[in-house]
Amino acid sequence: MGYEVEVKFRIDNLDEIERKVRRMAEFVIEKHEKDIYFNSPIRDFAETDEALRIRRDVEGVVLTYKGRKIDPETKTREEVKVRICPEYEENMIEVLQKLGFRKFAEVRKKRKIFRMQDVTFCIDSLEIGDFIEIEVESDDIEGAKKKIFEIVESLNLRRDDGIRKSYLELLIEKRQDSANC
Amino acid sequence: MGYEVEVKFRIDNLDEIERKVRRMAEFVIEKHEKDIYFNSPIRDFAETDEALRIRRDVEGVVLTYKGRKIDPETKTREEVKVRICPEYEENMIEVLQKLGFRKFAEVRKKRKIFRMQDVTFCIDSLEIGDFIEIEVESDDIEGAKKKIFEIVESLNLRRDDGIRKSYLELLIEKRQDSANC
Repeated sequence: MGYEVEVKFRIDNLDEIERKVRRMAEFVIEKHEKDIYFNSPIRDFAETDEALRIRRDVEGVVLTYKGRKIDPETKTREEVKVRICPEYEENMIEVLQKLGFRKFAEVRKKRKIFRMQDVTFCIDSLEIGDFIEIEVESDDIEGAKKKIFEIVESLNLRRDDGIRKSYLELLIEKRQDSANC
Repeated sequence: MGYEVEVKFRIDNLDEIERKVRRMAEFVIEKHEKDIYFNSPIRDFAETDEALRIRRDVEGVVLTYKGRKIDPETKTREEVKVRICPEYEENMIEVLQKLGFRKFAEVRKKRKIFRMQDVTFCIDSLEIGDFIEIEVESDDIEGAKKKIFEIVESLNLRRDDGIRKSYLELLIEKRQDSANC
């Protein structure tokens, strides 16, 4: 079991942030990710702060369970991943549906990934804007947070501007706002 | 979506049956299969006649959902398979448990597989005895049954002796019988 210790910031200056990230970390890949989220028949994941997702990108297909967030300042949560043979993505969706899970939402983004030792940077472009996520997979949550917030400072981001919401939650909020207009 | 049209017979004369099968079909593989069955948090699969299983064998790891049996004479049922990258088997179990599914039973068997065109023969040895399963994956259930029962006859098995129960069900019955002694 590992924790994904992670912070997220909205960025209006993608190019500038990317230049800074490129100076400290190594470029890994640029890819398009398509995420399908499912809700459970026994509890509302929006309320329990869990998530069940199938992600497809150029690297393959992964089923991920995310537990509720366990740190007040970051998006830190337990995460369990299962890599599926890519030709079985549709069957995985069908099995989940047979078991009572319902397709809930789809999120698409362009993601550039950079790495510096055990720190992963994701610069993401979605229909709701640009974001940076900085992540360390670790069992030492406090140590990982310290490292991450030093980087946040060096990127001239304000620790207090950190967003704990997932893209899925931001997307749902945006849609509700639009519906309320 | 495909149907697994399948019959099963208990055999007391494994060697003789195997000799006959070898004359009509081609040997494919001999392997040990370890199956873990899960039950659902929202319905009892023993009552709904469904199954959710993770199978590990020398060829890899597969998650399978089986629907209820839909033919009175055979084990025919809908089946959806998802091939998992083998190193993620433990994570798949963990995800299912996080989602509320419970490990229910484990079934181990030695299986010899033979193939004749689209017909698969499995000669299985379990702690509860030896069995033969004859299977065709097809959407044409009646056509597949006709073909299968011709083979059954040529093996000198009696159509009426067909067993519709899964190994899991047979194993549970056996345990209940033992407990009642």
